[in-house]
Amino acid sequence: MTYCVGIMSRHGIVMASDSRTNAGYDQVNVSRKMHTFVQPGERALFLLTSGSLSLSQSVITLLREDFDRGAGLAAAGTMYEAVRVVGDKVRAVAELDREALERDEFRFNLHVLVGGQIRGEPPDLYIVYPQGNPLRATEDSPYLQIGECKYGRPILDRGVRFHQTTLEEAAKYAVLSLDSTMRSNLTVGPPIDLLVYPSDTLDVTRYRRFLPSDPDLQDIRGRWERTLQKGVSELPEIQFTPPDG
Amino acid sequence: MTYCVGIMSRHGIVMASDSRTNAGYDQVNVSRKMHTFVQPGERALFLLTSGSLSLSQSVITLLREDFDRGAGLAAAGTMYEAVRVVGDKVRAVAELDREALERDEFRFNLHVLVGGQIRGEPPDLYIVYPQGNPLRATEDSPYLQIGECKYGRPILDRGVRFHQTTLEEAAKYAVLSLDSTMRSNLTVGPPIDLLVYPSDTLDVTRYRRFLPSDPDLQDIRGRWERTLQKGVSELPEIQFTPPDG
Repeated sequence: MTYCVGIMSRHGIVMASDSRTNAGYDQVNVSRKMHTFVQPGERALFLLTSGSLSLSQSVITLLREDFDRGAGLAAAGTMYEAVRVVGDKVRAVAELDREALERDEFRFNLHVLVGGQIRGEPPDLYIVYPQGNPLRATEDSPYLQIGECKYGRPILDRGVRFHQTTLEEAAKYAVLSLDSTMRSNLTVGPPIDLLVYPSDTLDVTRYRRFLPSDPDLQDIRGRWERTLQKGVSELPEIQFTPPDG
Repeated sequence: MTYCVGIMSRHGIVMASDSRTNAGYDQVNVSRKMHTFVQPGERALFLLTSGSLSLSQSVITLLREDFDRGAGLAAAGTMYEAVRVVGDKVRAVAELDREALERDEFRFNLHVLVGGQIRGEPPDLYIVYPQGNPLRATEDSPYLQIGECKYGRPILDRGVRFHQTTLEEAAKYAVLSLDSTMRSNLTVGPPIDLLVYPSDTLDVTRYRRFLPSDPDLQDIRGRWERTLQKGVSELPEIQFTPPDG
């Protein structure tokens, strides 16, 4: 399983991903799910992938080949064109592998989050579905998730606001959302990759990888648990009424 | 959909349930999912149900008929016997309806949480699966959930401890867990039924139904959002390292 989240605020984009892959219960490995396509000063695109690792590797490999020769993501003039490039590669890999997978009852389950900015355009955040079509984050729905989404969603719903949330806060929300998911689902696991993209920087300037033993991650987790426990104890006591049936 | 949670602490049991039922997207109704079977001073049993309302109604109807004539849950000598009684009724309804449902591709998806106490025994909390077999909460896993579980789980994982959590705190955790789920999933909705059972009371002494407009529920929700937002802003800023790839 996987959990990745992208948060868009008026100050930029935050992307975060776990790194656990598993085939069944026993083939558990670490694999980076965050992929950057950067021409400093020109464009900075960040892709997070969920679904079968074989499929996401194929998509990233094909995108990278084009990018390295100045085509595909290197040539897209807008973020919308860029996500269409990603969608085309998803469809190309579906053409290659989908029939064979489905014959053995594997699903073609590849999802891609695409965040970033191309010079002259505002930053943007999209999800690309297994069918290749894109969906854009909006001011009302400023975050997008792929993979094991549910555990990490309440903290985002309670706090992330496009206009109010700073990038520094969005980074903390992303880490808390990842950490909540890792806590409740064993198939989502560290390291956590975290990338914070301030608008108009057009490069990777703030990146952090949290290993499982990372003292900062332990510190965040400990402080957060104490915050929640203190918050609960400070809520007013619930008043009870006589039973009505 | 449904979300119900039971929490066991060394001080007693907390049970909470939503009240929304839906068939597809348009037949949305309110239905109580909390059912009490009480002989004051003798036994107090609380059942929460998830799954098709038709199935849970049948199980409760059959259990109530037996109870009212002093059999079934009224005669069980231990909590284990009581959950076996519930499991037998689940199997009886499976016998009645399962084949016809599955012929039309409906699943026999009935789950029951059973909490409470029988005089001379400690309080206990169980889940009864659609197959009729029971699972007991433990000191290490002191809460059980049925229905749409994932959104409401992180807050429980971060805070609920069998030995440390008071009943008053457990009640707040249950309400927050329900509220987080309602916030993220439209098919889980108010009223919320909350029952707090202090050990050895052998009766229903603390019950509360929160309607959607309940000012206390609004207050809890508002305070909780502010607690989380303040907690995030007070976490130390995340430090970044140069990108490594």
